[in-house]
Amino acid sequence: MYRTAVNSTPDASVTEEGAKGVKTKWLINNDNGAPTFLMRHFTVDAGGFTPFHSHDWEHEVFVLEGSGRVRYEDREEKIAPGDAILIPPNEKHQFQAAPDKPLKFLCMVPK
Amino acid sequence: MYRTAVNSTPDASVTEEGAKGVKTKWLINNDNGAPTFLMRHFTVDAGGFTPFHSHDWEHEVFVLEGSGRVRYEDREEKIAPGDAILIPPNEKHQFQAAPDKPLKFLCMVPK
Repeated sequence: MYRTAVNSTPDASVTEEGAKGVKTKWLINNDNGAPTFLMRHFTVDAGGFTPFHSHDWEHEVFVLEGSGRVRYEDREEKIAPGDAILIPPNEKHQFQAAPDKPLKFLCMVPK
Repeated sequence: MYRTAVNSTPDASVTEEGAKGVKTKWLINNDNGAPTFLMRHFTVDAGGFTPFHSHDWEHEVFVLEGSGRVRYEDREEKIAPGDAILIPPNEKHQFQAAPDKPLKFLCMVPK
């Protein structure tokens, strides 16, 4: 059994090209023996965004705090706390925080 | 792409033996085309609990609201909003809400 509190682990800045004001931490990772999928927590500063990119694995996202948008290849959608979002493999996506407050969300990924 | 809001889908009571005051809804399920794992939301009424059971798949839990405990075979641990919990396969577990307020959490499971 593994247990951690969100506030007890340090955030690390995301330095990937195309990211602005993004921090992430692992809540459940390989070291904890997770068999199938992993849990991360993201904070995007007000006005910040994750890279607009795609990859061959899915995201399952749950919005915790703030507001913002998900940008896709062909559209954008508003997101708010309580929203659950599946980003399928190979779909281009970007999470954008609103200009006036940070966006916080969980992002689960397969191992 | 699939998107839903927590508050827009109906809760269903958990009728499994050993459950008291538990409702659940799927946020991301097989119908949404999730490739690897699925997302559920649970509400446990004040004083309620999930079944004390085990199974051969893991849980990854994130506590959203309320407070309570996780009971294991040999111990209990307090949980609070922001806690991330990995229940490994075959570990007996039960989620218990505090006597005075409901407990809300996400529970992700492999497909």
